[in-house]
Amino acid sequence: MNTEQLINKIIGKKSIVGILGLGRVGLPLATVFATKGIKIKGIEINHKMVESIKNSKCPFHDPPLQENLEKAIKLNNLQIIENINETDNDIDIFIITVGTPVTADNSVDYSQLFSALEEICKINLKEKMIIFRSTMPPKTTVDIIIPLIENKTGLIAGKDFAIGVCPERILEGKAIKEIFELPEIIGGINKDSDEIATQLFRTINPEKEFSYTSPSGAELAKLFTNIYRYISFALSNEFAIWAEIYGLDATKLINIANYKYERSNVPVPGFVGGPCLSKDGTFLDNNTTFSSIVSAAWKLNESIPRHIVNNIKKISGNLFSKKIAVLGLSFKSGSDDLRSSPSVKLVELLKGLGSTVQIHDPHVKSTLSLSEALDSTDIIIVATNHKEFKENIVEINQCNADIIYDVWSMFDNIDFPKMKYFRFGRGFN
Amino acid sequence: MNTEQLINKIIGKKSIVGILGLGRVGLPLATVFATKGIKIKGIEINHKMVESIKNSKCPFHDPPLQENLEKAIKLNNLQIIENINETDNDIDIFIITVGTPVTADNSVDYSQLFSALEEICKINLKEKMIIFRSTMPPKTTVDIIIPLIENKTGLIAGKDFAIGVCPERILEGKAIKEIFELPEIIGGINKDSDEIATQLFRTINPEKEFSYTSPSGAELAKLFTNIYRYISFALSNEFAIWAEIYGLDATKLINIANYKYERSNVPVPGFVGGPCLSKDGTFLDNNTTFSSIVSAAWKLNESIPRHIVNNIKKISGNLFSKKIAVLGLSFKSGSDDLRSSPSVKLVELLKGLGSTVQIHDPHVKSTLSLSEALDSTDIIIVATNHKEFKENIVEINQCNADIIYDVWSMFDNIDFPKMKYFRFGRGFN
Repeated sequence: MNTEQLINKIIGKKSIVGILGLGRVGLPLATVFATKGIKIKGIEINHKMVESIKNSKCPFHDPPLQENLEKAIKLNNLQIIENINETDNDIDIFIITVGTPVTADNSVDYSQLFSALEEICKINLKEKMIIFRSTMPPKTTVDIIIPLIENKTGLIAGKDFAIGVCPERILEGKAIKEIFELPEIIGGINKDSDEIATQLFRTINPEKEFSYTSPSGAELAKLFTNIYRYISFALSNEFAIWAEIYGLDATKLINIANYKYERSNVPVPGFVGGPCLSKDGTFLDNNTTFSSIVSAAWKLNESIPRHIVNNIKKISGNLFSKKIAVLGLSFKSGSDDLRSSPSVKLVELLKGLGSTVQIHDPHVKSTLSLSEALDSTDIIIVATNHKEFKENIVEINQCNADIIYDVWSMFDNIDFPKMKYFRFGRGFN
Repeated sequence: MNTEQLINKIIGKKSIVGILGLGRVGLPLATVFATKGIKIKGIEINHKMVESIKNSKCPFHDPPLQENLEKAIKLNNLQIIENINETDNDIDIFIITVGTPVTADNSVDYSQLFSALEEICKINLKEKMIIFRSTMPPKTTVDIIIPLIENKTGLIAGKDFAIGVCPERILEGKAIKEIFELPEIIGGINKDSDEIATQLFRTINPEKEFSYTSPSGAELAKLFTNIYRYISFALSNEFAIWAEIYGLDATKLINIANYKYERSNVPVPGFVGGPCLSKDGTFLDNNTTFSSIVSAAWKLNESIPRHIVNNIKKISGNLFSKKIAVLGLSFKSGSDDLRSSPSVKLVELLKGLGSTVQIHDPHVKSTLSLSEALDSTDIIIVATNHKEFKENIVEINQCNADIIYDVWSMFDNIDFPKMKYFRFGRGFN
């Protein structure tokens, strides 16, 4: 293929980039490119999301992205479409950012990926590049995607079109900053693919750094990062369980262990969930017949909501007909993302025990207000570490609950003089 | 007890500190106190070690400690004895640094600790302080040690004598520097015990920082640190296994994943052993009936020597009567410590398969020279990451081996132009 021509087009900001999927990975990337003068066609099948984005309204909670989206739309560099058709033959580079969730039996759900491939194969891919930014099990690109595209189009990967894996590694809520700053991992099928991807990402930041590997290497490196974090969180939760057994306070001891001790960087105990961390490990673990560290970590993290319900039962007795205020429903601080949120699991468990659950999350619109959630409640559970709960400590103190259970060690006894304060990871017998 | 009197004695450098156990924890601490003007009685039952130390010769390989030992002896502040007797009634503070290994069935072996307690109970402990610096399962001090001392002496802990846990957290080879720099965790039984221990450690460095907790908290915090490191290493080894399955190179991908990415700090794959990391997890794990992350990590780390032997068999066929040079026998770079060294386990496995094993370790005196180890060898295994092997790459290249297997990713193909180079964590099929 004529690599030089495509590279010159990118450098001259004459290329058009099609981004498939405008969720929490695709939308920030689309807006960053657009604000850097790259023409973007964003392709999203969810009609409601399309309408929202077209109206400069980010469909999920992310203030810096909201700001960037407004800029991108104003610059007229971000066109939103619901499907690809012949008029989109002008797209030079496709970036696939669709989700790769797992099914109920923890297998990879490739359906969004296959739909995206169907879409791009509608137009002639000759002389174009396809970049995969979704998290995928190693070998997905070489064993599944490339044969599929070659079969559908009669073209040869590497010869007729460029292709590579450049995994997304941003933190939700910090996407804009991190797309600019983070080194890119480039896993092109050949040198030409590496070069095209490099030039494209360099338009975001001329100082950006790059690491090169194969498509499978890029897929695996991404998983290493997420699994490493997942295991750190799981281990912290295992420490929490041990501290409870010994009647000690895990958070306090973790802080002591970490203090100015560079070989220790243990996170604070809490729920571990969300759309990435809890499933990425299964992409590898599914390939192993024996128990791995990942499977032990998964078992542990997934059991924490149940463990906390059991702790609360030990503290307050049967939960049937108890009124429980759950503060926080999203999986992480400052987010409205409910995907694989342990807090959602906690609510289901409580309901199953016959409790009346009153949920408040400042970022989740469908939930109650704080005062509604606290109304005549028996027990409060701090289930997400939103900073808003610290800001509302006076209001929380005014309610009638006599027990507050803090999953995230956000507070301490002294903060709730009239309640009994309990913390995940602190023994209470 | 008269806490003020003891503290004044410490500040005036008139106190005498007895350190029980002059191994890799006790000896560095003894020399540091001695060079700071504190009178030390070092108590060590191993006669050979006592003779060596008396002659200003560190009994194990640790250059900065060797230097500090010479200073301490010259200052005449370090007296070495083999047993405590009545003339040692002048000791004001005891620091117990004896080993707490595990037995063959992974139970804690308290025998050295009990011997140390026998020793100190020979003299009157009234108005004195006892500090435990050994790694111990949580509750050891309050459930075992204190009742034992009280029973033997008729004294009351906290009232008649001070007692606390101040866990050792140094890295072998960096002991002197770290004793000076690291914050101390102080787990005194009461405020008086905390204060005495604080004043004592402040004599090392007036700027030293302190974290306070209970004796059990100090015991657990120490375990958190070591287990966190142990799990990081195990996870890296799990990544190595996965990379091998996918025909990829774990070390290369880990370096890519870590590069300027603060959420990723995965170590490089390699053997995990030594007297601390592999056993400290069992101190907690033994208390759990179900599989924990620690037990999964232990299973994995312990299996790596066997995994590597199996890899080498796949590469070169049956190892019966093959000559194999094992480079490195100690458990870590720059050390001569053979305790729980996976390299020792590797040698045993190879011998069990009928190989002739020729071992060279620049720090282990009982081993062959490099040229002897390499003599007419078929296979070389780099089993410890001593920097000396990099320095001797020319000599290694001159031998007849046609296979070199690198457990530590110290080298790469290009380093051995005439051999087939293999690396743990890199697929080779």
